[in-house]
Amino acid sequence: MAPRTRTVFFLSDHTGISVETLANALLAPFPTVNFQRHSLPFIDTIAKAEEARELIRSSHELTGLAPIVFSTLMDPVIRAITKQTDALCFDFLETFTAPLEKSLAVKAVHEDIKVHGLGKPNDYDDRIDAINFTLAHDDGVDARHLAEADIIMIGVSRAAKTPTCVFLAVQYGIRAANFPITEDDLEHRRLPDSLKGLIPKLFGLTIDPGRIQQIRQERRPDSRYASLAQCQFEVRQAENLYKNLNIPFLETTHLSIEELAAKIIQMTGISRHNRLL
Amino acid sequence: MAPRTRTVFFLSDHTGISVETLANALLAPFPTVNFQRHSLPFIDTIAKAEEARELIRSSHELTGLAPIVFSTLMDPVIRAITKQTDALCFDFLETFTAPLEKSLAVKAVHEDIKVHGLGKPNDYDDRIDAINFTLAHDDGVDARHLAEADIIMIGVSRAAKTPTCVFLAVQYGIRAANFPITEDDLEHRRLPDSLKGLIPKLFGLTIDPGRIQQIRQERRPDSRYASLAQCQFEVRQAENLYKNLNIPFLETTHLSIEELAAKIIQMTGISRHNRLL
Repeated sequence: MAPRTRTVFFLSDHTGISVETLANALLAPFPTVNFQRHSLPFIDTIAKAEEARELIRSSHELTGLAPIVFSTLMDPVIRAITKQTDALCFDFLETFTAPLEKSLAVKAVHEDIKVHGLGKPNDYDDRIDAINFTLAHDDGVDARHLAEADIIMIGVSRAAKTPTCVFLAVQYGIRAANFPITEDDLEHRRLPDSLKGLIPKLFGLTIDPGRIQQIRQERRPDSRYASLAQCQFEVRQAENLYKNLNIPFLETTHLSIEELAAKIIQMTGISRHNRLL
Repeated sequence: MAPRTRTVFFLSDHTGISVETLANALLAPFPTVNFQRHSLPFIDTIAKAEEARELIRSSHELTGLAPIVFSTLMDPVIRAITKQTDALCFDFLETFTAPLEKSLAVKAVHEDIKVHGLGKPNDYDDRIDAINFTLAHDDGVDARHLAEADIIMIGVSRAAKTPTCVFLAVQYGIRAANFPITEDDLEHRRLPDSLKGLIPKLFGLTIDPGRIQQIRQERRPDSRYASLAQCQFEVRQAENLYKNLNIPFLETTHLSIEELAAKIIQMTGISRHNRLL
């Protein structure tokens, strides 16, 4: 019988986000195995590499099973130390760098590379600006600089506008404002005054009335705000508004914020300042 | 001479975040090559796979150079269609899945897998809750539920508290509040009243006084707030406060928010609800 538990290590000389992301995609198709994950980021000295090697060895002794190691270590010396174990090692950079070098006819430069963080100062600053802009323009708090937004998310209350905007800012460096549509505006199927003239930047979110009712019910039980009739009315009016004004929109009921963000970028062609991890 | 420009495609049946993350890590050591990146997410039908194949072929014809394709497509039929080109293809899942299956003695299940988004409802809800909590507890706005925070970031104004908290919430599902320390509190090297009793949750940020002066100068030119003397005083007092109370802290001057977040998790051992992309 296949073992039900397996220890997994993520080794990185930096934050570990890349290696964790890819390793988790590889492990997901094995839902019956209980993976014990250990992230070992910032392995950037020989001492830390030796420490990682000992952790891997101890885990092997303790469990009696060779751990699985995923690695994005760049330095060959550090990498070699971590491999002095009997673990099964998946080394992403080592596997793919040689064929890439051959195809590009260029040698990889492994020193002073900062894929992450502050490596590309302009992109990084753009992303921090986007986060600050998005927080300052959450829920229509500040309408003065809306014209500087890359996108303005609109929709009824609790349709996931805020987390979607935050994700657009953090992952893609997009200045994403969001603006509520009040009941009064919905009644008359009109945009709030602050948004008139900004229609090309608008993106609508909608959601299944039953789902929104459930969310609202948790927040304000048995209120008119949480009644199914009210939710149905608001959603219907919002969707009509989007259609009348040719505003692109998505239904959020079965989509995560990652999916929403990627689909919004695909639908609008909005340009992004990628987070390079 | 090696070509200076190369077209790169990122193929995914989902958001494309995994494939972009790893591909960018692989491409970073080639800074002299200008990569033209094209992301093709949500390739989940045969028609979309054929469309991707045609885009890759056209790019080849147009540039006269075989494009480089990075892929995390799961479905074997869809994957095969996208490979009907002369591009150099790096297929992450295909490369590593077979040795993983062997080591685990379990077959990979490629249907109905949702690594992303809503696949693990509890983790996903925790992350959305964390984002909402973090936004509601930015800059000391709401001190009532601070005890529910996983971590409370403190520091002088403009030390990157807000974007670091937002990143902790989005990437790791951590409920990260942040709280400003006023000049008056700094003067007396004391914590704001709302934070007394919460010392085990506190984490300090500090920053080079010259750098903070530069940031503040852009916001309020030639103010006392932006004077070097004031910045030096605030930073010194904040660091003394952290040391006196044994509050762990980091200097943010040369660290990105990704690096800060990963180091904070490493230093505090705080548990996380990973974003699985």
